[in-house]
Amino acid sequence: MKFATRLQQAIAAKGTPAVVGIDPVLDKLPAALQPAERTLGAAVAAIETFCRDVIEAVAPHVPAVKINAGFFEALYAEGLAAYYRLVGHAHEHGLLVIGDIKRGDIGSTAQLYACGHLTTPAFDDVPAEHIPDAATLAGYLGENAVRPFIEAARATGRGMFVLVRPSDPGADEVHEFGGTTPFYRHMAALVDRWGNAPDLLDDAGLSCVGAVVAAKDAASNAELRAALPRTPFLIPGYGAQGKTAEDCRPLFRADGSGAIINASRSVIYAFSKPAHAERFGDDWRGAVAAAAADFARDVAPLGRPS
Amino acid sequence: MKFATRLQQAIAAKGTPAVVGIDPVLDKLPAALQPAERTLGAAVAAIETFCRDVIEAVAPHVPAVKINAGFFEALYAEGLAAYYRLVGHAHEHGLLVIGDIKRGDIGSTAQLYACGHLTTPAFDDVPAEHIPDAATLAGYLGENAVRPFIEAARATGRGMFVLVRPSDPGADEVHEFGGTTPFYRHMAALVDRWGNAPDLLDDAGLSCVGAVVAAKDAASNAELRAALPRTPFLIPGYGAQGKTAEDCRPLFRADGSGAIINASRSVIYAFSKPAHAERFGDDWRGAVAAAAADFARDVAPLGRPS
Repeated sequence: MKFATRLQQAIAAKGTPAVVGIDPVLDKLPAALQPAERTLGAAVAAIETFCRDVIEAVAPHVPAVKINAGFFEALYAEGLAAYYRLVGHAHEHGLLVIGDIKRGDIGSTAQLYACGHLTTPAFDDVPAEHIPDAATLAGYLGENAVRPFIEAARATGRGMFVLVRPSDPGADEVHEFGGTTPFYRHMAALVDRWGNAPDLLDDAGLSCVGAVVAAKDAASNAELRAALPRTPFLIPGYGAQGKTAEDCRPLFRADGSGAIINASRSVIYAFSKPAHAERFGDDWRGAVAAAAADFARDVAPLGRPS
Repeated sequence: MKFATRLQQAIAAKGTPAVVGIDPVLDKLPAALQPAERTLGAAVAAIETFCRDVIEAVAPHVPAVKINAGFFEALYAEGLAAYYRLVGHAHEHGLLVIGDIKRGDIGSTAQLYACGHLTTPAFDDVPAEHIPDAATLAGYLGENAVRPFIEAARATGRGMFVLVRPSDPGADEVHEFGGTTPFYRHMAALVDRWGNAPDLLDDAGLSCVGAVVAAKDAASNAELRAALPRTPFLIPGYGAQGKTAEDCRPLFRADGSGAIINASRSVIYAFSKPAHAERFGDDWRGAVAAAAADFARDVAPLGRPS
């Protein structure tokens, strides 16, 4: 089954297009999980325990998690090993997994990155469950940087989200370049072209080539949605980064399909907010589950026909 | 000591601005190193043995190696562990090391990528020698994507090369966008600005913020050199990708400083070329060493005043 269909079915099953982002930082873990010693092994163990519990806490409420490879690479190869195990753990709990890797290199190297992050493993001792269902990508080196991932997606029913409009306002100095046709619109047109082939589209006309599109002003959001009718959107910036469900609405198709919304810090560190801390005390998992449920409920109407 | 000075001293010591790129692919290894079984452990061991020998073969001839993380990530976390060990192995053999990671993400994530790839480790059990002297980066999410690496470089005497003009012609659909001021010139101006602070420049006026700049037509090469007077260039595309030393000349400063040239496949797989195979027989290391020496000699004049 194609990725866009799998994603839409998972959204329907949970009743919400909410995705929880797994961005673990050692200093922000609950006090009970802080390692006693400053070794890499202790740090990775603490991060992994935290993430496994977060995954279990949010699994009943959302269709997917986005696991950010950068936060694991901060802990070197041992951290990346935990990343792959956590992809497997999320799969065990019935979640779709987006590997947030933002890789982008020339074609000969992109082929290798695709092998590590989206292709079904060619080694008997690497579990297929450790590979995510989709990856985030940088398409700034052109189609060749994305093509190996498209081939992997076509062969396996996986997908991808290519950066088109990042959430960080600091990215505007690049993405607003170009005058009347800003750079992000150029990238949008490329992503539309790369993903527009009959065998890449599902029955609802959605492609395995999606886009990362942050919510900005309503007019440009609606323009992007219209310009990319076949492209599933992954919308960052909700919650800690300040965007509301209403801000995200123009990025959904009229039938409520074609987009998912990610929240990371506002959910996984909910236990450190005073309101949650007071209600849940030491039960940090309860605070995370409640924040995931709140988030899922808040954005649920966007996933229904408007 | 600042990175640009360390790089220039290493170039002077070896008498050449040649850098060998380590891009290992299992299928291309010498027959003697092909693993007997199709397990991940056997693949990583074969790749690592090959790369250690390549590093030792080229170390007498060049000032630096560029190790491409993508080729190791194809072998998952175990591959990345080998990447870090190989950075350490190259350091043991007196080489500067460029970690070819092409990472680029929003500021909050870039901070974590910098921790994993350029900052001196904060854990007692992670050897500082496993961290490269410089990293390649994607700056397409703006200054915030690069700033954590600049801070790491400032604090440690390390450096970086930000993508400005990639070697893959397929990247032109992005980098030639924008009409009279193409996108790559916009990225060039940003990189110049990010690296232009008094405490980032060395005594020769070269910044710790370099750029990846492929050789294209002579006129635009000379323009980029003039537009980025403080920026060290890492030039891809020599050898297997078809560019000659003469093509690269306009990217050097008049005194021969400010640029390095990378060759990967033409050196590390030299043993599979008929001419080398005939001369060296089963001595694949000898073929690699000879190719490195040829490459080093071919581009050596570029590193001298013109």
